[in-house]
Amino acid sequence: MSTAPEFHSIVNPLACQVHWGDCDPAGIIFYPTYFRWIDAASWALFEAAGYDAKWMREQHMAMPLVSAQCEFLAPAAHGDRCEVRSRIARFGGKSFVVAHEIVRADDAMLARGQETRVWGRYVDGPGSPMKGETIPEELRARFRAR
Amino acid sequence: MSTAPEFHSIVNPLACQVHWGDCDPAGIIFYPTYFRWIDAASWALFEAAGYDAKWMREQHMAMPLVSAQCEFLAPAAHGDRCEVRSRIARFGGKSFVVAHEIVRADDAMLARGQETRVWGRYVDGPGSPMKGETIPEELRARFRAR
Amino acid sequence: MSTAPEFHSIVNPLACQVHWGDCDPAGIIFYPTYFRWIDAASWALFEAAGYDAKWMREQHMAMPLVSAQCEFLAPAAHGDRCEVRSRIARFGGKSFVVAHEIVRADDAMLARGQETRVWGRYVDGPGSPMKGETIPEELRARFRAR
Amino acid sequence: MSTAPEFHSIVNPLACQVHWGDCDPAGIIFYPTYFRWIDAASWALFEAAGYDAKWMREQHMAMPLVSAQCEFLAPAAHGDRCEVRSRIARFGGKSFVVAHEIVRADDAMLARGQETRVWGRYVDGPGSPMKGETIPEELRARFRAR
Repeated sequence: MSTAPEFHSIVNPLACQVHWGDCDPAGIIFYPTYFRWIDAASWALFEAAGYDAKWMREQHMAMPLVSAQCEFLAPAAHGDRCEVRSRIARFGGKSFVVAHEIVRADDAMLARGQETRVWGRYVDGPGSPMKGETIPEELRARFRAR
Repeated sequence: MSTAPEFHSIVNPLACQVHWGDCDPAGIIFYPTYFRWIDAASWALFEAAGYDAKWMREQHMAMPLVSAQCEFLAPAAHGDRCEVRSRIARFGGKSFVVAHEIVRADDAMLARGQETRVWGRYVDGPGSPMKGETIPEELRARFRAR
Repeated sequence: MSTAPEFHSIVNPLACQVHWGDCDPAGIIFYPTYFRWIDAASWALFEAAGYDAKWMREQHMAMPLVSAQCEFLAPAAHGDRCEVRSRIARFGGKSFVVAHEIVRADDAMLARGQETRVWGRYVDGPGSPMKGETIPEELRARFRAR
Repeated sequence: MSTAPEFHSIVNPLACQVHWGDCDPAGIIFYPTYFRWIDAASWALFEAAGYDAKWMREQHMAMPLVSAQCEFLAPAAHGDRCEVRSRIARFGGKSFVVAHEIVRADDAMLARGQETRVWGRYVDGPGSPMKGETIPEELRARFRAR
């Protein structure tokens, strides 16, 4: 997955913390927690660019997934304070890639994830099937870092 | 919460297992997992009575919660096979109470839960606000144990 | 459950937000999410009183549940910013009750929960069975609001 | 990630169902649910090969993750009954790759996932840091399909 070299996205931080129930019997974070975090971080990135949950709902838009992946670099433990740093890595025609870095308060890089999503509209109102839409230039522009 | 003495509901079993990620650093089940189970068990009870997920969706019905509670009697560990045994404890006008027992394969009673729910219809299609509806006699009849 | 009239606990706020994946097909918060929040809020309350995750781990202490309950007063939707306000409602000999209020940024009271927990020590190191211990006076003192 | 051509692993099925709380406001499965499933499916695969949760616990073994990925091919809805079909795709020295296919009851392929894990032993008892161990030949042999 190549990042178009000319595109520099805004980077949005989402604060999160490893809670007791996010950990497994090994005493470290249960890995699907990272995917819960990066999903929330993608929505937070869009909010930072002007597309918040309310707008998405009213416009009947969502961002269904094509694929997701994550590398786990260091274990996190109960109580650790972290930040998910998210940016658009690439815009395609109807799809886009969000890159995420998960960093602990002591600057340790814990994980690196990536999601490929579609810019999708509910065909027949909220909860109905979604169809990909061409990503408008205005949307791309709002993610450009200055 | 008293159970109307004349009402004997069907009891529906839902099989479940304690997975690795359902447990916390103490090596036992993280308690919100029980609430995930009993929510699923309420839907399974309604399916057993003839109201499956598809019917609920098409009829624009859901079962929003008024309250939920659970007592934890014995800890469950990774790998434990369990069953949630669910029944209607009481029907009110628009609301009802579901009682759940969570039993391990060795017959140990792990937890006892209860949910109060409303029989609710989406006012304006799926995802819109819900309004309580009088529970029809036909629905009550379907839950009666023979 | 009566609150000893002479005891006024510190109240600790835990910020949280309703994420996309915390909601169900009705477009509102899936209720076990509240229990995930109030569990995290209990740990945050203890951290505020001087017992953080690291201390608990090193001292082989945890806080297993006896029971939990929650009333759901108003639905929360994706994007809502909330606060869990937690305090000790009562100290018993080896157990205690934590009361939680979940309030949205617009001051709407969303839910009211309560947990009964045991002050428990791992008998044989982390992950081993737990045994209730008498709550020390020093611990009680740290929760007293000034 | 290439699969060693001479290795044919047993394939283990894990039954699962899309519950109400596994879905998001779009009315389809929230994608981290798939990762919860495939984590559980990896443990179920090891149980099928003779290494159940109890054995793993007693031997102080676990299977920490190096990376995980999933492609989402078709959306699943509330009520869908599925099966995760899991097999070892590759054994390395201390690590291994588990491949998962998630198939719905109507045979629709919903998702394809992969995890890279380490065969890890707790250095100092359960809950302590883990260290990778050379995967014994006996373990490899138990996964060989006949």
